[in-house]
Amino acid sequence: MMKRIAILGSTGSIGRSTLSVAEAYPERFQILALAAGANLEAAFEQACRWQPRVISVAAEKDADILRARLTKEGLGAIEVVHGAAGTVRVATHVEVDFVVSAIVGVAGLEATYEAVRAGKIVGLANKECLVAAGELITAEARRQGKPLLPIDSEHNAVHQCLRGGRMEEVERIWLTASGGPFLNTPRADFAAITVAQALNHPTWRMGKRITIDSATLMNKGFEVIEACRLFHMPPEKVEVIVHPQSTIHSMVEFVDGSILAQFSVTDMRLPILYALTYPERIQSDMRFPVMDMRHLDFCPPDMQKFPCLRLAYEAARAGGAKTVALNAADEVAVAAFLAGGIGFDEIPRIIEDTLSATGSGKLESIAQVLEADAEARRYAKQRIADSSGRVKQPPAPSFV
Amino acid sequence: MMKRIAILGSTGSIGRSTLSVAEAYPERFQILALAAGANLEAAFEQACRWQPRVISVAAEKDADILRARLTKEGLGAIEVVHGAAGTVRVATHVEVDFVVSAIVGVAGLEATYEAVRAGKIVGLANKECLVAAGELITAEARRQGKPLLPIDSEHNAVHQCLRGGRMEEVERIWLTASGGPFLNTPRADFAAITVAQALNHPTWRMGKRITIDSATLMNKGFEVIEACRLFHMPPEKVEVIVHPQSTIHSMVEFVDGSILAQFSVTDMRLPILYALTYPERIQSDMRFPVMDMRHLDFCPPDMQKFPCLRLAYEAARAGGAKTVALNAADEVAVAAFLAGGIGFDEIPRIIEDTLSATGSGKLESIAQVLEADAEARRYAKQRIADSSGRVKQPPAPSFV
Repeated sequence: MMKRIAILGSTGSIGRSTLSVAEAYPERFQILALAAGANLEAAFEQACRWQPRVISVAAEKDADILRARLTKEGLGAIEVVHGAAGTVRVATHVEVDFVVSAIVGVAGLEATYEAVRAGKIVGLANKECLVAAGELITAEARRQGKPLLPIDSEHNAVHQCLRGGRMEEVERIWLTASGGPFLNTPRADFAAITVAQALNHPTWRMGKRITIDSATLMNKGFEVIEACRLFHMPPEKVEVIVHPQSTIHSMVEFVDGSILAQFSVTDMRLPILYALTYPERIQSDMRFPVMDMRHLDFCPPDMQKFPCLRLAYEAARAGGAKTVALNAADEVAVAAFLAGGIGFDEIPRIIEDTLSATGSGKLESIAQVLEADAEARRYAKQRIADSSGRVKQPPAPSFV
Repeated sequence: MMKRIAILGSTGSIGRSTLSVAEAYPERFQILALAAGANLEAAFEQACRWQPRVISVAAEKDADILRARLTKEGLGAIEVVHGAAGTVRVATHVEVDFVVSAIVGVAGLEATYEAVRAGKIVGLANKECLVAAGELITAEARRQGKPLLPIDSEHNAVHQCLRGGRMEEVERIWLTASGGPFLNTPRADFAAITVAQALNHPTWRMGKRITIDSATLMNKGFEVIEACRLFHMPPEKVEVIVHPQSTIHSMVEFVDGSILAQFSVTDMRLPILYALTYPERIQSDMRFPVMDMRHLDFCPPDMQKFPCLRLAYEAARAGGAKTVALNAADEVAVAAFLAGGIGFDEIPRIIEDTLSATGSGKLESIAQVLEADAEARRYAKQRIADSSGRVKQPPAPSFV
């Protein structure tokens, strides 16, 4: 049966990989709705190539231009929408079966939540959906009786391994972590880590924020929270294990002592294909050369050296606005580090202070999530301004 | 619900491990019937400890002694039977739910087949059931709609990994092999391998025949045939991969390119527990220390150096009496090697000749399997006698 797909974030990396999967299996997947971003040219090309029912772009004026250009191409039947409402329109289109949620940041939250509310099956590639709004979104998916399918290598691996038993038979989820570029850097040297060093990730080429998040292990911390929400696990059942080769994408340990692990080529098209076809699997040529698998190392993460991971566990336990604040403060702190405003070792301090200032009340709506997010950002920015202010201030007069 | 268990081969290693599992979970498992062997003392102790409905021993006179001793202990209600018919009585007892088939050799065939025919769920630890009679036994299990559950680390691992998809979604089964003690021995040195060298297995302590079968890789060849029969796979979808650390017990590769692997402590109680509780998993303290997992090596097996593995694939493809002959000839050849009658490198030659002399007709009953088995043994023994005769004969006169 043809699966009809909407992509939120169609011009990003996951969006383009999803389109390439759809291209490889034209008899299985139909691209029905696209939410592009600010890249008008890419949106125009995708609209021409895929002729979806509806396409959304960020700005109203871009929507007008796109509509005119498509009409000129004889594609005036494609509905062109824009902004947050446009993304929701794409996510909830009545003909869509499956929504790929791949808009980076909290911008993707509302549309993803609305997709779940509309009874769509959602493939999740957006971190914030589970970190900031995981309790809301998973509760809604349960209400709808629809699966939330992870599209990232770790949670996708966990999802596959979990098929080896029942949820109540899971002893522990093992998320593997490459360890980042500073796995073997002494803690004393962390203050002096430069932006260039932090951007030099050993195994993956990624965006700047996620590269820094990998260097601080905050990215793994986010994944712990995602795993807790997605698989309804308490944080103490989600362990991080450093595995520099990143061959094993993750593991599940069952109560009887058996461990299942998943590996595959590191190609995002594979988890996308898995999510799009679940519970089926279909033939692909993405083969992992088993013979190449050797020298797998494993060690526990150093929570002293990487306090971000500890903070993520604390936020996961507290829930509510704490995980929202964790993500928001991290984004602010990483931006400040990249801009040269704070040192590498100050990132966790900003986050920790923001967490302390955040209540752990339950959030009842996406609007409340966005509000908590904005508040945490304000706090983190102020905290950065204050501390750089302190440094710049002359010493207080001694008679005070 | 209490599971009521019969053990065929209760005084052997798997039998005793099964009893120790039953001991650990008295609220789950009841030992209802035991087929012991020639060890009368062990049979008496097990009967006293477990008070089964019925116990079988090998010889009639032992049965008489055991009956008298049990009566003296006030356990006269335990039915004592003997011989092949006694084993079948144990395997088919009306109150039994689950039969652990762990009698070594073709002796276990008939009783296991009858257990399947009686609609029991069977846990298989006897190699011959699948190598020699796999087509018959799996066909009967399918007819009965009952699972055959593997109790050995490799097939148990495969069984677990297969839960990650559907049978038609399996691209390949990867059976891991330690490689045995001669993994790095040059082929030219194989003729000079001594019994002591061959019995010195790098990772496992086992019986003599299985240790030699591990050194020739014939044991892995048998496992290929078992996997083909148990999981209804053609031989070309069952690959052997040498993995000296034996950490990963086996793997399944799916059509989409994902691979699931299983590991656990190397303790036979774990696959036994898995089989006994399937499709459930229950809590055990058999924990695998994930941190200890490192330096996993993988390489393809050398079919030139280990012709037994090639012969097993050929027999698996041919089916019928060929796999019976493979097992029978191997048992004879290994016994001859252990007795100093033939060299290590002659083992595969004896087997290959026996296979050549064996037809590939389909076997329709256990009686036919046993007949083919006896015939192959006769042939292999004659072949050994002939060749040692040839060596001892004086050179033919030159004028002939």
